[in-house]
Amino acid sequence: MAKKERITGVLAPVVTPFRKDYSPDAERFVRHCRWLLKSGCSALAVFGTNSEANSLSVQEKRKLLDSLVAGGVPPSALMPGTGHCALTDSIEMTRAAVEMGCAGVLMLPPFYYKGVPDEGLYRNFAEVIERVGDERLQLYLYHIPPVSQVPITLALIERLLGKYPGIVAGVKDSSGDWSNTKAMLDAFAKDGFDVFAGSEVFLLDNMRNGGKGCITATGNINPGPIDRVFRNWRSAEADKLQAGITATRKIVQKQPMIAALKAAIAHYGNDPQWRTCRPPLIELNSSQEKELISELKANGFTMPGLAP
Amino acid sequence: MAKKERITGVLAPVVTPFRKDYSPDAERFVRHCRWLLKSGCSALAVFGTNSEANSLSVQEKRKLLDSLVAGGVPPSALMPGTGHCALTDSIEMTRAAVEMGCAGVLMLPPFYYKGVPDEGLYRNFAEVIERVGDERLQLYLYHIPPVSQVPITLALIERLLGKYPGIVAGVKDSSGDWSNTKAMLDAFAKDGFDVFAGSEVFLLDNMRNGGKGCITATGNINPGPIDRVFRNWRSAEADKLQAGITATRKIVQKQPMIAALKAAIAHYGNDPQWRTCRPPLIELNSSQEKELISELKANGFTMPGLAP
Repeated sequence: MAKKERITGVLAPVVTPFRKDYSPDAERFVRHCRWLLKSGCSALAVFGTNSEANSLSVQEKRKLLDSLVAGGVPPSALMPGTGHCALTDSIEMTRAAVEMGCAGVLMLPPFYYKGVPDEGLYRNFAEVIERVGDERLQLYLYHIPPVSQVPITLALIERLLGKYPGIVAGVKDSSGDWSNTKAMLDAFAKDGFDVFAGSEVFLLDNMRNGGKGCITATGNINPGPIDRVFRNWRSAEADKLQAGITATRKIVQKQPMIAALKAAIAHYGNDPQWRTCRPPLIELNSSQEKELISELKANGFTMPGLAP
Repeated sequence: MAKKERITGVLAPVVTPFRKDYSPDAERFVRHCRWLLKSGCSALAVFGTNSEANSLSVQEKRKLLDSLVAGGVPPSALMPGTGHCALTDSIEMTRAAVEMGCAGVLMLPPFYYKGVPDEGLYRNFAEVIERVGDERLQLYLYHIPPVSQVPITLALIERLLGKYPGIVAGVKDSSGDWSNTKAMLDAFAKDGFDVFAGSEVFLLDNMRNGGKGCITATGNINPGPIDRVFRNWRSAEADKLQAGITATRKIVQKQPMIAALKAAIAHYGNDPQWRTCRPPLIELNSSQEKELISELKANGFTMPGLAP
């Protein structure tokens, strides 16, 4: 069966808006997704770390996914996170995404048990692939050891890629360690394994070494300028463009990232309800938000077309 | 409303048996639970870390809980684990347990995000308590930083206990750090906060300092001797009894704990299917199992009444 063209470019792990009672707000979610796709994102990695996805039940995520498609977001622009601690949850969510026609899924390893052997992680991913049993599946591995504490090793990638070529499609590397991203590129990019940097700070380096783009938190608020680096990475001005998006990133990541993204959307979209985070996360306090916004303004940051 | 008498003694975080296809095996589960209650456990902390509970979906756990009660295990002897990453999952599972009449619930903090503020953890537990909204709830906090990486601090306990006295009932301390258990006892035991050691290695120390028992992995295979320490902690032979159960523990924890418990049950119960672990965990290899069983035998270990 012929595979669809694969996703490249800039993806946002879309932040999830909540109502006052912490229930997911589908309407604001759809609106933000549509803004992102208009503003520079080639696709949306909904239900990522920055989406507070692990604070949502499988049912809540499935309903949000339905709302997106009903709201006009094409499944071909979706790479939802589908990896859970529970094998059966990962299977359910992955199957739902594939059946909707999502372009890919981004899969965390099961992350409760620490120090598990690669054999156990291999069995986890292999079981999901076998049970979903659908050649349309494009599985992107999600390597984020600072949060998950469970790494996706090169040896594990090699074994999965050997067994499931064409299904194991790539990785998001959120290690924050360029040498690890480089090692993934050197080992597997030639085999059609698509490496996405987990931060736009590494976007230009990733493109120059055979990578396919980035999936980045800050994509939620700065998609246009990040996309400009992606589209112009071969141009003479690439380094200058990269310096610009790196500067914005550094401002945002001084604060707790998810709350900062939500504060920026609340401020620039004039929509205070966006500030709410679901426990265990909390919103920025007022001095954190003041620092964030004033530094962004001083840097000339804008979110064109966000405010109604 | 008058509270029921609280659980004390030895609890096992009951290991969960799986079929060859990794589906939970309710029949073996009920059989093992009944053996534990006959053999020294005063209650069962089903769906704990050693139960591979986080590898199970909420639906799978609810079905197992139903099977237990249908199989004659009294809800008054159950303290199921109900803490998940997703607030809504924790609420659903806690509500189900309370409505079944379970004696208590043992609640992990949400464990995906690391370094979260106590305020966020407070909101998580408070939301669960408020949404379940049932005075029968007896909530035991589950402190297991080596695995969850998210600690339950003394300050958090103090705040929860101040707001929800009579509902926040105690803690399982699986830090492995006796000085932490001692600090919890010193600070809160006088307020009716019941401290359970997370390993029988600390059982005698815990009892001598005002604790209520232990919730321990090895309770799955050695409940009788551990219960003997609990019942005789004031006796002259207490230290000798403690040395015996500590020796057994040391043998078991040389191996990956969950796989070792399952290997022991498979061996002594003559039931090989018990060896299966759900990914990402794997069974012991044959040399690990050989070492485990031969050391247990050399130590005079038995599991009376387990084999059919």
